[in-house]
Amino acid sequence: MMTEKDDHPGGEFDLIARYFTSLAGPGAYGLADDAACLTPASDGKRQVISTDTIVENVHFLPDDPPDLIARKALRVNISDCAAMGARPVSYLLNLTLPPQRGKMFLEKFSAGLAADQRAYNLNLIGGDTTRTNGPLVISVTMIGEVPADHLLTRGGARPGDAIWVTGAIGSSWLGLQALTGKIDHLDDVFAARYRCPEPRPHVIPPGVATSCLDISDGLIQDAGHIASQSQVIMALSAADIPLPGKLPPPLQRKYFEALVTGGDDYELLFTAPETATATATILDASQRAAVPITRIGTVKPGPAATQLLDEMGAPYQLTRGGWQHF
Amino acid sequence: MMTEKDDHPGGEFDLIARYFTSLAGPGAYGLADDAACLTPASDGKRQVISTDTIVENVHFLPDDPPDLIARKALRVNISDCAAMGARPVSYLLNLTLPPQRGKMFLEKFSAGLAADQRAYNLNLIGGDTTRTNGPLVISVTMIGEVPADHLLTRGGARPGDAIWVTGAIGSSWLGLQALTGKIDHLDDVFAARYRCPEPRPHVIPPGVATSCLDISDGLIQDAGHIASQSQVIMALSAADIPLPGKLPPPLQRKYFEALVTGGDDYELLFTAPETATATATILDASQRAAVPITRIGTVKPGPAATQLLDEMGAPYQLTRGGWQHF
Repeated sequence: MMTEKDDHPGGEFDLIARYFTSLAGPGAYGLADDAACLTPASDGKRQVISTDTIVENVHFLPDDPPDLIARKALRVNISDCAAMGARPVSYLLNLTLPPQRGKMFLEKFSAGLAADQRAYNLNLIGGDTTRTNGPLVISVTMIGEVPADHLLTRGGARPGDAIWVTGAIGSSWLGLQALTGKIDHLDDVFAARYRCPEPRPHVIPPGVATSCLDISDGLIQDAGHIASQSQVIMALSAADIPLPGKLPPPLQRKYFEALVTGGDDYELLFTAPETATATATILDASQRAAVPITRIGTVKPGPAATQLLDEMGAPYQLTRGGWQHF
Repeated sequence: MMTEKDDHPGGEFDLIARYFTSLAGPGAYGLADDAACLTPASDGKRQVISTDTIVENVHFLPDDPPDLIARKALRVNISDCAAMGARPVSYLLNLTLPPQRGKMFLEKFSAGLAADQRAYNLNLIGGDTTRTNGPLVISVTMIGEVPADHLLTRGGARPGDAIWVTGAIGSSWLGLQALTGKIDHLDDVFAARYRCPEPRPHVIPPGVATSCLDISDGLIQDAGHIASQSQVIMALSAADIPLPGKLPPPLQRKYFEALVTGGDDYELLFTAPETATATATILDASQRAAVPITRIGTVKPGPAATQLLDEMGAPYQLTRGGWQHF
């Protein structure tokens, strides 16, 4: 597992011992064996495994604080587990380091991992460190567990279901615009969100949703993924989509299209039966978690498609690229 | 899982559908959901999880055939599972692609995956594809299973155990020398081995070994890993170490030190009780698998160390860097 085959084996073993061994959990053998060993829970549980890679200059910026890069790498995977209804439990880390990422980077990076291990009750169980002459590349593989009857996929949405979304849409896109100087005078909350997403495990109450995913490719495109996996029409009401409260209303209108097609939200989009009980359960969960959950549309029968509707129920015209895929 | 947040989302979904969906196994949801879902075997089995990253210019050469790059990425992880005594079952793939790795590369790369999925009875269950402006980076996370009482670690070697190794040592190092033009007139078998390792799952008979690892950092250094995890002395007999038969004896002598310290062998180094029964079981397994298994030393009590001994039992002097870590 955390072994190294380049020209600096001693250095790499030291690196693992210094920065990562203290993060290791049960089954990791102190990151000193060939692989981790788990005894998966077997009492009606399912194991969920997600993996995501983040690449310097693609998914984060070279100057982003190292602890936030670490937390982003964990959180995009925590979000994938949450989208399956699962509790994230343990993870493996593949770190491909350029030469300029040395001691100072690694100290802050591992401190970021430690902080989110505490925040989300996670264990590091394995990984690999390698060197590169290219950009920093980080892959995290997250293992979670979920009772079999609470597993959520993209494939269970049924006509008549209500469509819900957690949080607000577009914060991360705004953060990227702020950090790259493309939009001025934005609230700092957006840059913070881009650098460190806020995944939503434990927010959706178990047993109520019929389908779910996390919004990483943009709300509209991701709604299309539920549409195609469930073979339904996802009819979204443009006016109901929750936009960031810290963005002044004129800018909400100006950037609407970018907000609903920009990626990296890591909010959960899910469907649930349109019953008074389900609705009450969802709104109650929203209040408990102190996370807004907003109804934004209705699942309709028909060939897989996403419809974005204006207040008159007419199609809302989008021009951005994301739209072409539906 | 196999999602993409760069500027070419449609292109990436197409890429997954075209090259990878056909490789997906049970629990992968056709690579179209947020994560894979497994129902791990629970009847006394343990789950083994290994992950290794290979990086262009570090672990493989830019001109290596794409199908062999794919197979190497799988096989280094198959080898880690084998080192734990486990049967590899399913894997996740993180592919970070530079722009010049296009359709032709991906066709050959996925064909290599398919070939080894058949050869080793594996399923792809998830992954992620991302773009980079740097070198090609491939991480594979392999999930295997092993009966709890057949699990092997680096920590079980006991004084008096015999030390065994599969195959021959140094082939991959010779291959790298051939491919980089540093040694001429070497048999083609070595370059082939560097590009496509030969892991040894199912070679060690269950229940006989007390410790095991796969040789990725060089025989001497990896023997040291068993020494430190088991708190024993690994006493190796230099004359007994099996060297590649296709290397003429004068070159075996000339390059001895490089062969036993060079990495990427992916042979298994293991310890077993020095009993007639254990020895017979191992030699029988060697014959069945048509893989040489050679006794190369004895575990001794004492503070963790590796000793390389000449035919007189005196310390064999090594000068190469690898040695400094013991």
